[in-house]
Amino acid sequence: MTRRGLLVVLTGDGKGKSTAAWGMALRAVGRGRDVRVFQFTKASSARLGEYRAFARLGITMDVLGQGFDWDCRSAKHCEQLAGQSWARARAALQSDEPFMVILDDLLYPLRQGWLVLDEVLQSLHSRPAHMHVVVTGRNAPQNLLDLADTVTRMGLTKHHYMQGIAPQRGIED
Amino acid sequence: MTRRGLLVVLTGDGKGKSTAAWGMALRAVGRGRDVRVFQFTKASSARLGEYRAFARLGITMDVLGQGFDWDCRSAKHCEQLAGQSWARARAALQSDEPFMVILDDLLYPLRQGWLVLDEVLQSLHSRPAHMHVVVTGRNAPQNLLDLADTVTRMGLTKHHYMQGIAPQRGIED
Repeated sequence: MTRRGLLVVLTGDGKGKSTAAWGMALRAVGRGRDVRVFQFTKASSARLGEYRAFARLGITMDVLGQGFDWDCRSAKHCEQLAGQSWARARAALQSDEPFMVILDDLLYPLRQGWLVLDEVLQSLHSRPAHMHVVVTGRNAPQNLLDLADTVTRMGLTKHHYMQGIAPQRGIED
Repeated sequence: MTRRGLLVVLTGDGKGKSTAAWGMALRAVGRGRDVRVFQFTKASSARLGEYRAFARLGITMDVLGQGFDWDCRSAKHCEQLAGQSWARARAALQSDEPFMVILDDLLYPLRQGWLVLDEVLQSLHSRPAHMHVVVTGRNAPQNLLDLADTVTRMGLTKHHYMQGIAPQRGIED
């Protein structure tokens, strides 16, 4: 049995992908480890609950959608914003310091074609050997699954939206 | 659309059930809500990372296996310990205060037959209407799934254990 940094992919249509990543961050922080959180989210102002709780734990969530929430004006503009965001995450992947890097909803800009999959895979592959990376999002591409050490597919069996229950503060954000 | 307390079940064989519950706790705590965490875990001393991080956020994890780690001497003894543990969680479900109650690995003592499913379901059903409850564990019984508002099945697509990678501090505990 060996020990090394893991690439964990949390995918599928069910609820729990990002929250499972937050739980992994919580566990690592509780062990005194350095965790970096990048959120490639569509909804910039959402998920404030975890943002505030992470701040109390000394973790800064880097909300990359903030200020433009991916509501970009053209394909070129989207690519430009996504590229700038990715550059910040890539710098963390190239640094020796983080124990864990969380790339939440990275699959969103990838799916839109705003980031180049091969470049992302190359950065993941060439990260320091000790570094754990957690990637979340729907529709993980096969090449990413192949590279991953651990993949969980969150299957949507039942969701309260379907029963007419509205999003609630402290639950959805 | 209505708003009310949800019963969320996180089940399946994949990694991410407990960590998704921790992430939900993190989100709620970040919104200033009162969260109670009960851990019906088999391994009492494990998961120290989240225990410490929760303490920093002012949440006490009630680790119900602690001191005996379900290594009980007889079926009668197991039932007795599980019953005592369940009584503490049930008291939280009957209280008006918590915004969210997490019953981590509750399905373990249920599966062993140490708790009576109908009594557990009755307590979940009759809890205060505003209260969110998160239940985690493998092999959720159908009656629990029927009662739930949201069910995510964490499917094990790939796990690093299978590739000979040992458990690591900050990842598994």
